[in-house]
Amino acid sequence: MSETEKAEVSRGLENVYIKATSLTYIDGERGILRYRGYDINDLANNATYEEVVHLMLYGELPNSEQLKRVKDVLNSSYEVPEDVLRVMEVLPKDSEPVALMEAGLAALATHEKEFKWKERDREKALEIIGKVSTITANVYRVKQGLTPRVPSPGESYAKSFLEATFSKSFTSQESSMMDKFLVLYADHEVPASTTAALVTASTLSDMYSCMVSAITALKGPLHGGAMEAAFRQFKEIGDPSKVDDWFERTIVKGGNRLMGFGHRVYRTYDPRGKIFKSMAEVAAQGEARKYLEIAEKLETLGVKHFESKKIYPNTDFYAGILMYGLGFPDFMFTPLFALSRTLGWLAHVVEYVDEQHRLIRPRALYVGPGKREFVPLNQRK
Amino acid sequence: MSETEKAEVSRGLENVYIKATSLTYIDGERGILRYRGYDINDLANNATYEEVVHLMLYGELPNSEQLKRVKDVLNSSYEVPEDVLRVMEVLPKDSEPVALMEAGLAALATHEKEFKWKERDREKALEIIGKVSTITANVYRVKQGLTPRVPSPGESYAKSFLEATFSKSFTSQESSMMDKFLVLYADHEVPASTTAALVTASTLSDMYSCMVSAITALKGPLHGGAMEAAFRQFKEIGDPSKVDDWFERTIVKGGNRLMGFGHRVYRTYDPRGKIFKSMAEVAAQGEARKYLEIAEKLETLGVKHFESKKIYPNTDFYAGILMYGLGFPDFMFTPLFALSRTLGWLAHVVEYVDEQHRLIRPRALYVGPGKREFVPLNQRK
Ligand SMILES: CC(C)(COP(=O)(O)OP(=O)(O)OC[C@H]1O[C@@H](n2cnc3c(N)ncnc32)[C@H](O)[C@@H]1OP(=O)(O)O)[C@@H](O)C(=O)NCCC(=O)NCCS
Ligand SMILES: CC(C)(COP(=O)(O)OP(=O)(O)OC[C@H]1O[C@@H](n2cnc3c(N)ncnc32)[C@H](O)[C@@H]1OP(=O)(O)O)[C@@H](O)C(=O)NCCC(=O)NCCS
Repeated sequence: MSETEKAEVSRGLENVYIKATSLTYIDGERGILRYRGYDINDLANNATYEEVVHLMLYGELPNSEQLKRVKDVLNSSYEVPEDVLRVMEVLPKDSEPVALMEAGLAALATHEKEFKWKERDREKALEIIGKVSTITANVYRVKQGLTPRVPSPGESYAKSFLEATFSKSFTSQESSMMDKFLVLYADHEVPASTTAALVTASTLSDMYSCMVSAITALKGPLHGGAMEAAFRQFKEIGDPSKVDDWFERTIVKGGNRLMGFGHRVYRTYDPRGKIFKSMAEVAAQGEARKYLEIAEKLETLGVKHFESKKIYPNTDFYAGILMYGLGFPDFMFTPLFALSRTLGWLAHVVEYVDEQHRLIRPRALYVGPGKREFVPLNQRK
Repeated sequence: MSETEKAEVSRGLENVYIKATSLTYIDGERGILRYRGYDINDLANNATYEEVVHLMLYGELPNSEQLKRVKDVLNSSYEVPEDVLRVMEVLPKDSEPVALMEAGLAALATHEKEFKWKERDREKALEIIGKVSTITANVYRVKQGLTPRVPSPGESYAKSFLEATFSKSFTSQESSMMDKFLVLYADHEVPASTTAALVTASTLSDMYSCMVSAITALKGPLHGGAMEAAFRQFKEIGDPSKVDDWFERTIVKGGNRLMGFGHRVYRTYDPRGKIFKSMAEVAAQGEARKYLEIAEKLETLGVKHFESKKIYPNTDFYAGILMYGLGFPDFMFTPLFALSRTLGWLAHVVEYVDEQHRLIRPRALYVGPGKREFVPLNQRK
């Protein structure tokens, strides 16, 4: 493309407003993130995931009765049609894990025969959040060769998910870590995955298909895949003493991207990254502690090196260390991201269809050949 | 949203250029459509689908040798991993058909463990086009309770597809109709489905996941679902004598959208619609003939009624009649659309990643509450 053409194309849709929202506010210069006006630090420290679910879908933090209602619907939604788990079992154990999630959700979508928007969208969203817990847990189980398991109804969505995944019990401190992860990743305005979900919703496709669409985008290493990619760097480095050398070789000389760094919107520290870092500092043990040390060294080098470009650690940089500490292998990181972000995807599509629906149909700038005469096959060179 | 806010949001991304392209040129005022400079009428009359595949992926109409190569790769790509067909069989027969396609493609994506862009994208695209034929044929077969079947290698992609779907042979006149359908739907710049595929590709997710994403958007009644919806109107009307009454009741008084009419880009007749109409006029027999008569009456009323809004029949208006005439039930219309559009989706994502890749990450305009103080659960009303 020439420079003139570049000027007309909104590359990466940077600074294009695809919708209005009352959900999430980001101040990329000051590193502020709020859900419906509440600072992410307040929510991470004081609210459970279920409270955040109510906040995002219904606009307000719930009172006890509303909270009970959210939990009741979640608890009664873990069951999925039998064929959904069978689809996941039929696929090979070494399946790409996010695609396994796509398949599970697509299987759920096959049951959406008469989907109608604007009838019971928020209730439906709660049901989907329940079922995504089941699908995510079974991504792990299928890949480990374990029999499928449906989360049991209980007091905490995070705890039910952990226990179904690993078929063992977790302390309340551990489930609280999972819970905070779910809160922190729950929404982030309109990154690629949410944009994909909105495009799908704009055609009035069904809500499960919006989820499938979001997950296909989350899968990419530039988006949801970054949490796993960041962690793999720490594994590749292997020891805190090797950080300097690796950084010099791979990033400075090699010109590779430092995964878990940089963001289209933040030009400073991602506030979620800071929370994850402090959580990891409290919780990381053994191997996880070693990765934490590596990450901290890498952070110092990266922040210095990329200072002029305003590239800082993003939320994916430390989150993986925490999840690894809870027992998740790194192939589960993107599915875990999806589990949490399900809330944001659904809240955004519901808001879009409800208040400002329009078919999303951009244009492409034609830069190809002008009109050409057709030449029959036998005259072509 | 207030009027000021509306002004800042690019609603439906109308007139936003998401990419540059050398693939498809649309002149919406004059009703012109070209693939890489060739008029759609020339291509529909003179080129086979395989020639158009080469044109779109490699930039030029193929010579005989190049054409042979395209056919060879397609012919050797119909096989899919066994579990892909099993996934489709496991799902209920009354599955939503497009979601069944999502599931089949997601199953294929589970096999994409080490996907890398820019290595052999165009070859990969050909392979996917082969496999999508298999998946589409088996959407029909699964829903009809037939055992799965893989298309046989042969001279024509269209013919192999028809014969695998229905397990019977087709005349060359019939496969030529299928072939023209494939040519006419092969690309249309960046409608919602292609946009979804681009968003997914922009994260560097895998190519199958781009297809999945596209299909989730195609599923909606405002996009790919419109071909089926248009045809259902003809069925609902049932007889040419009832068109006037139905139109008055449903459209004029009822205020419903006339499906198969209207387009974000065309402000006149869609050139593909005209070609489908003349094909239907030649080919439609029996029931299909009756639907054609209904459609023609409806067209006259619609064009008159919507004159001031510049709303005309689009490609979906007559296409269904033709496919119905070939033996497809209307639940197959969106999958057929997907089968053809696979080419456009792939050509666009390959062009995007190859020449102008950037993460697609728009913004949302925040219109919600300002900073709020957190209130603990027991103090909420
Ligand atoms: C997330 C990301 C895609 C957003 O970036 P973007 O807004 O599209 O920015 P661009 O890709 O246009 O990059 C702008 C500049 O910063 C550089 N840059 C951005 N992120 C970088 C990173 N992580 N490492 C090294 N350089 C980086 C680019 O190379 C580019 O430099 P240039 O102008 O000299 O060519 C990008 O920061 C990235 O790839 N990060 C790594 C993956 C990641 O962690 N993603 C998770 C995000 S939550
Ligand atoms: C395809 C479509 C979504 C594109 O429309 P768009 O650019 O988003 O246009 P809008 O929805 O903003 O509509 C503009 C005006 O035309 C009207 N309109 C558009 N298509 C219409 C249709 N098929 N029937 C009746 N009215 C229609 C709208 O009601 C609106 O009227 P208003 O300004 O008085 O409110 C729309 O034409 C449609 O819904 N068509 C029917 C579905 C279809 O055939 N889709 C296949 C497209 S290939």
